[in-house]
Amino acid sequence: MFEAAYELYYWPEIQGRGEFVRLALEEAGADYVDVGRVPRSKGGGVEAILRVLRGELGPHLPFAPPVLRAGDVVVAQTAAILHFLGPPLGLVPRDPAERLWAHQLQLTVTDLVAEVHDTHHPISTDLYYAQQKPEARRRTRHFLSERVPKFLGYFERVIDLAGGRWVLGKRLSYVDLSLFQVMEGLAYAFPRTMDALAPRFPRMRAVSEGVRQRPRIASYLASERRIPFNTEGVFRHYPELEPGGPAARRGRRRPARRNGKPASSQA
Amino acid sequence: MFEAAYELYYWPEIQGRGEFVRLALEEAGADYVDVGRVPRSKGGGVEAILRVLRGELGPHLPFAPPVLRAGDVVVAQTAAILHFLGPPLGLVPRDPAERLWAHQLQLTVTDLVAEVHDTHHPISTDLYYAQQKPEARRRTRHFLSERVPKFLGYFERVIDLAGGRWVLGKRLSYVDLSLFQVMEGLAYAFPRTMDALAPRFPRMRAVSEGVRQRPRIASYLASERRIPFNTEGVFRHYPELEPGGPAARRGRRRPARRNGKPASSQA
Repeated sequence: MFEAAYELYYWPEIQGRGEFVRLALEEAGADYVDVGRVPRSKGGGVEAILRVLRGELGPHLPFAPPVLRAGDVVVAQTAAILHFLGPPLGLVPRDPAERLWAHQLQLTVTDLVAEVHDTHHPISTDLYYAQQKPEARRRTRHFLSERVPKFLGYFERVIDLAGGRWVLGKRLSYVDLSLFQVMEGLAYAFPRTMDALAPRFPRMRAVSEGVRQRPRIASYLASERRIPFNTEGVFRHYPELEPGGPAARRGRRRPARRNGKPASSQA
Repeated sequence: MFEAAYELYYWPEIQGRGEFVRLALEEAGADYVDVGRVPRSKGGGVEAILRVLRGELGPHLPFAPPVLRAGDVVVAQTAAILHFLGPPLGLVPRDPAERLWAHQLQLTVTDLVAEVHDTHHPISTDLYYAQQKPEARRRTRHFLSERVPKFLGYFERVIDLAGGRWVLGKRLSYVDLSLFQVMEGLAYAFPRTMDALAPRFPRMRAVSEGVRQRPRIASYLASERRIPFNTEGVFRHYPELEPGGPAARRGRRRPARRNGKPASSQA
């Protein structure tokens, strides 16, 4: 339908999971079309994504975006897309064992991203955040105190074991681009927490800063192709979710035991 | 350390995520050791898993079990393990596009399994179920009414589009084994819901029954190697979580509006 080598189908107004694919395509200077951001009159927009989800691209039906089309290949699932794109984009070693290792790391990024999503949607993706605020607050507290240190500590150790500049060692891979996105997203969503945690993860910060300074990534980040973070994506900044942030005035259920005040009217 | 071609490192007392790997190894009649179930005195047990998580098997550090070792290869992440095992076990076509498609389907199984886990742990994996019961009840209600029909409906359509006996068409793949496990697990955890939903997914049921009747799978299921479902694994049967099941007597926070009774002392 389009002339480009790669067609990305993802929601046009958020970074979301599609951003991990966009970063890989941008770093490689790949010839791609971000179809969701093409006007509807030219075959793009949300309508194009919905057609893909209905199966218009053939029998390999995607469950959800992002979806990548490259010639005859149609592939969904962020980590699978990157596993497929890595070799032609030069963003992963061709050695099968190294390629599998990069993919394994990306799947752990995927797990982290799913947990980030569930901080604001702990009950259901079919409810608004405002309908699950007390649970979101509780889940976020545990996520920030237990899971973020665990995930970042894991990647910190992996970079250390690799003994080089990047997570696989000497050469940049798509995993580094994804770790940059994770650090950016966490810093946007949870600035107080990440300010406090940052000194513990110098290697993660070095990888992230290294990615930011790649010429093509820097150019991308400065362009309008980079959609700003917002409260529709995976990483969302709701100040009331961070411990120490402003209290959620609505939706509290429990008595605020620490100071002895009574529970709110929502209790 | 062991003589077998494959070493699986997974918790010895649950099916969990390791079961998707066990089913593939069993169907193929593979030469494997389930290291966690080997006595500690012979180098197995939980201690062996903890050593692997500390990095004893080399620089490709796993984030969590299951972990598979095959000669020099050490790989974690269930879907990545199956992607690796598929070709040597004959459980996926060798055509790269078909292999990628099978992997993409497995990643959607992974997403579903993560959502199943979060029905009983919607707030934190570091808390007990008993500490997050009200949230578990609310999340489960949405999971069963929205997500289970969406996931099963997706796989039902994929099987239909494949036009054959199995999810990839004519030949059994590891994805079929995983779909069997999903259907078994859901039926164990949510029997009332699955009884009601089953007629809507005849192809999923046919795949599942087909897997159950494979000679090696039937033999495995009848053996003590198949750990029974229990309330320590991913699929858990807590009757109070199913709508229409017995009410959760503890942990309710809200007034029971339907019958006008006051909130419990936990409110």
